Amino acid sequence: MAKRKMIVKVREKVPSDIEIAQEANLRPIIEVAKEVGLLEDELDLYGKYKAKVHLSVLERLKDRPNGKYIDVTAITPTPLGEGKTVTTIGVSEGLAYIGKKVFTCIRQPSQGPTFGIKGGAAGGGYSQIVPMEDFNLHLTGDIHAVGAAHNLLAAAIDNRMAKEARWSTNYLAKALCPDDEYTPSMRKRLEKLGIKSERPSDLSDEDKERMFRLNIDPDAIQWRRVVDVSDAALRSIIVGLGGPNNGLTREAGYDITVASEIMAALAMCNGLADLRERMGRIIIGTSRKGGLRYPRPVEPITAEDLNVAGAMTVLLKDAIMPNLMQTLMGSPAFVHCGPFANIAQGNSSIIADKIALKLADYVVTESGFGADCGMEKFMNLKCRVSGLVPNCVVLVCTVRALKMHGGGPKVVAGKPLDKAYTQENLELLEKGLPNLLQHIENALKFGVPVVVAINRFITDTDAEIELIRSRAKETGAEDAIISEVWKKGGEGAAALAEAVVKACEKPTNFRFLYSDDMSIKEKIETIAREIYRADGVDYTPEAEAKIKLFTDMGLSHLPLCMAKTHLSFTHDPAIKGTPRGWRLPIRDVRASVGAGFIFPICGPISTMPGLPTRPVFTDIDLDLETGRVVGLS
Amino acid sequence: MAKRKMIVKVREKVPSDIEIAQEANLRPIIEVAKEVGLLEDELDLYGKYKAKVHLSVLERLKDRPNGKYIDVTAITPTPLGEGKTVTTIGVSEGLAYIGKKVFTCIRQPSQGPTFGIKGGAAGGGYSQIVPMEDFNLHLTGDIHAVGAAHNLLAAAIDNRMAKEARWSTNYLAKALCPDDEYTPSMRKRLEKLGIKSERPSDLSDEDKERMFRLNIDPDAIQWRRVVDVSDAALRSIIVGLGGPNNGLTREAGYDITVASEIMAALAMCNGLADLRERMGRIIIGTSRKGGLRYPRPVEPITAEDLNVAGAMTVLLKDAIMPNLMQTLMGSPAFVHCGPFANIAQGNSSIIADKIALKLADYVVTESGFGADCGMEKFMNLKCRVSGLVPNCVVLVCTVRALKMHGGGPKVVAGKPLDKAYTQENLELLEKGLPNLLQHIENALKFGVPVVVAINRFITDTDAEIELIRSRAKETGAEDAIISEVWKKGGEGAAALAEAVVKACEKPTNFRFLYSDDMSIKEKIETIAREIYRADGVDYTPEAEAKIKLFTDMGLSHLPLCMAKTHLSFTHDPAIKGTPRGWRLPIRDVRASVGAGFIFPICGPISTMPGLPTRPVFTDIDLDLETGRVVGLS
Repeated sequence: MAKRKMIVKVREKVPSDIEIAQEANLRPIIEVAKEVGLLEDELDLYGKYKAKVHLSVLERLKDRPNGKYIDVTAITPTPLGEGKTVTTIGVSEGLAYIGKKVFTCIRQPSQGPTFGIKGGAAGGGYSQIVPMEDFNLHLTGDIHAVGAAHNLLAAAIDNRMAKEARWSTNYLAKALCPDDEYTPSMRKRLEKLGIKSERPSDLSDEDKERMFRLNIDPDAIQWRRVVDVSDAALRSIIVGLGGPNNGLTREAGYDITVASEIMAALAMCNGLADLRERMGRIIIGTSRKGGLRYPRPVEPITAEDLNVAGAMTVLLKDAIMPNLMQTLMGSPAFVHCGPFANIAQGNSSIIADKIALKLADYVVTESGFGADCGMEKFMNLKCRVSGLVPNCVVLVCTVRALKMHGGGPKVVAGKPLDKAYTQENLELLEKGLPNLLQHIENALKFGVPVVVAINRFITDTDAEIELIRSRAKETGAEDAIISEVWKKGGEGAAALAEAVVKACEKPTNFRFLYSDDMSIKEKIETIAREIYRADGVDYTPEAEAKIKLFTDMGLSHLPLCMAKTHLSFTHDPAIKGTPRGWRLPIRDVRASVGAGFIFPICGPISTMPGLPTRPVFTDIDLDLETGRVVGLS
Repeated sequence: MAKRKMIVKVREKVPSDIEIAQEANLRPIIEVAKEVGLLEDELDLYGKYKAKVHLSVLERLKDRPNGKYIDVTAITPTPLGEGKTVTTIGVSEGLAYIGKKVFTCIRQPSQGPTFGIKGGAAGGGYSQIVPMEDFNLHLTGDIHAVGAAHNLLAAAIDNRMAKEARWSTNYLAKALCPDDEYTPSMRKRLEKLGIKSERPSDLSDEDKERMFRLNIDPDAIQWRRVVDVSDAALRSIIVGLGGPNNGLTREAGYDITVASEIMAALAMCNGLADLRERMGRIIIGTSRKGGLRYPRPVEPITAEDLNVAGAMTVLLKDAIMPNLMQTLMGSPAFVHCGPFANIAQGNSSIIADKIALKLADYVVTESGFGADCGMEKFMNLKCRVSGLVPNCVVLVCTVRALKMHGGGPKVVAGKPLDKAYTQENLELLEKGLPNLLQHIENALKFGVPVVVAINRFITDTDAEIELIRSRAKETGAEDAIISEVWKKGGEGAAALAEAVVKACEKPTNFRFLYSDDMSIKEKIETIAREIYRADGVDYTPEAEAKIKLFTDMGLSHLPLCMAKTHLSFTHDPAIKGTPRGWRLPIRDVRASVGAGFIFPICGPISTMPGLPTRPVFTDIDLDLETGRVVGLS
């Protein structure tokens, strides 16, 4: 393939992200799609620069070999930022620059942080996905669709409890089956309960109660509501006030939409039928022990039991299709799904990766947060479910972040950086390097070659770069190459791209760190020892009880999704570097059966961000002359 | 223009709505757009069968004369249904059938009722907007965008209160203006407060407090949150539990998204700049009297004061563009906005109507609910803001609904209809006719010709039809014509379309019922007397106080949006027919300054529907073989 050029003029003095993005001469997305081998019938355009790609392409190209699969991850994050998304897009821009057929797969960001603390997440400088406004705003509505499906299930739960509290079992049976016929989802519940019945009128009183009275325990409901706004006031709320028509009064709360189990399931599924199954399997809580005429044991209650999993899937039928956009090199990018990186897998969708691997020779995908979190889940969880085999890991670091891991001075927002970060300091860098090296070692445990990408700042010295390079190679990395993609676009990542191509030529020896048949505890302990380097694991009694419960429920074959801070190898975000001689505490263990994993919780987890005193939205507006967005960064 | 044909084979035995819709041979929307004179650059495709139309078309065609403007409305609704949406689409299909260049403008339905009580709202039988699944589901995400903008403002309110409770005024000033500079929206607040200042550091302590401490009264917040799900448990909630990081604990609640003032403003605006103004003007509540170092009077707090109106407009920049779809005749339809019909105008967007009027010779638009509600607002409110002049009103009725107004037996769901409705009964029909006739008289008061559309059922006799026809004509209607569009498609409304064409030839003598400069009470009393036929109006002390407040605030020039039940000419939904000798009680009066109207409240208003014991979602699923939606009706 011919070498690509940037679709925007690269200026010496780098303008703001949105200025660069708006200056770009975007390729019509249909052209990007056709070049990569998509047929017009496989596209749903969303304006001129976005398109959804039909899943049928997977069937059409099923016999085509996959391209090389590259995961971009990073060292343990610091407040200084590593430029992981910039480098992910940058590796793609670099590959396009050297003439390779490349596809980028990346997560859709939540609007909460976009308007709250963080701002946009489309990369930065000359390494962006465009149009960046669409990327950071609604895109094609997938997150809203996840929210709609999630909140429909939530409404179904409160409604069912309110109606069960009001009506007799006979009335419920008649209302739910007015024609004395079961719906398909009711038949699934019959099967689960082991009841043989052709029509509701067949049922004994006891079976009728089992069938139609879910008897949901209000105190055991795990299913919260979601909204794609950072809204701390909704973290903990009471619903159902104002009388019996408004349902039962109970404690509830909101998460940000990307923390929804549905987002995790959407990113993990391999098609509509699989998604339909996953929606049905979602456990919203359990039944109560008491309150029944015919007592029965506590049972998990699913979305299928509430007859709403079909409608939820209908709401997601477009969201399942990946969104095609482009980089500032005009190369194709899929933006699809954005599951949380602690209580979920923090990786973009399997479907997008699978389609991209059929269309391109190199597919660059990003895994959220530090490599101990995002990459570990990419390998053990996402690749396990997808069956895909990674060919290369790109590990992003910066000189200044490594110095911070080495014990560099605290960074205070609004104050100039300490000179430890802006002048050569090999000693401090040397002290911080083990964080990078441990991540390299970890990646190598999966049998995948590692290339280190040094996201270069202007103050980084050659000696500092060389130190990183030599220590990385000693530890087993293929190479460590600087990336100047933020400043230079594709050209700035050309050498990095060459190194990635070379690494991808190596034979893969990919392996998981644990097998399906290991116990939940064995899996936890494997990750704690091998990746985090803990001496051992401690469980609270609650965690012990949950592990027993999930094992009894037959869920122990599921892979893990560790809910741990990404700011440290440990559970304590304050501990930088490469800590040794510590034990990992497991506070609680939960299951996302729809998403298909068990998630042990190692510390406090926030699933609803708040807003700062001056939220990012303060600067965002429309230029009414041009209709353009201003203030989005 | 050549006569059009249906894009689906019309069968003798009418299949289900979704079967008809899925059987249709849809025209690519680009073809529909080009035929009507839209340029490719004026479209954003959303898949093959939906497109957003750029507002720039209004500028391009500004010198072209408008087409004829037809409002479809209905008699007072009964549980039997009148088929208003079916007939709205039907009039269009009829006009297309007889070879006229026609455009339909219709509201986007909320997903709450679609999955709750009502089911789909894309018309029915051979009179539908297609693809009906898209119409009834996310469409292009406009309702979600309204929800995102609405909830961002809600989060901004709770966040601001929490931060003001925590920080000193000096800290707030510094946090909000870290560079000692005002944002454009801060400058607007300065202007509103009459403070002259170049930079925050200029400000006296008192002015700093006025500027940066909004001092929102938690008990006076009118801005609730929204979700596009029928979720009764959210009607009344408590937010902010769980400690100070989660904000202040206070009562709050959710409305369904289409009840958002933002939806009303979007439907009412004439462009992005106007929308930006409207967002800024939204009043979320008032300041508190106390709690300040420098006491000041209570003031209304706006979205502009919270510096979030720009970001809200950014979230709506695509939603402002109407969505182009097609009828089952392949004729163009705009589906755009769906403001609530009681606390808001219940009419689709002004922008869609304006664009359609430049593109077609006949534009058929629908106004929500009965003519005393929807049509009155169409005339006095929507046309006042748009400056557009209607040429014809089509008033939909059915024989059976008129019989119910005449005192016919109660209809019980699930039981067969009483023979009063299914056999000829001229006496009962005669008794019910005044409801229709009063709506005709009302429409004539606006100076607009009226055509009655009788949505015919198979059991309606010729004598019954003739009785309606003669009485309607006596009362001043141009004609009364049967519509069999549900069963026959465009052909079934051909005669109706001819009558509409004829009526549109008459010179218009359009006038409003009240002038801008009348007092709020005079406006209320005009509508009560002229449209509802009340003897007078009674105000609660609260309503009196609000009228005084809004008058003092300089808002009395705003038009009214009466919040009254549509199920009766009176405020009591149980009273059918044409009641006389009654007085209209005004419980409360509120203002939607962003939408641009004052809404007097005449009775209990529900802004969040609930779910029945067996919600519509129970039957909705995907056919996993074909990927098609099943069970949506």
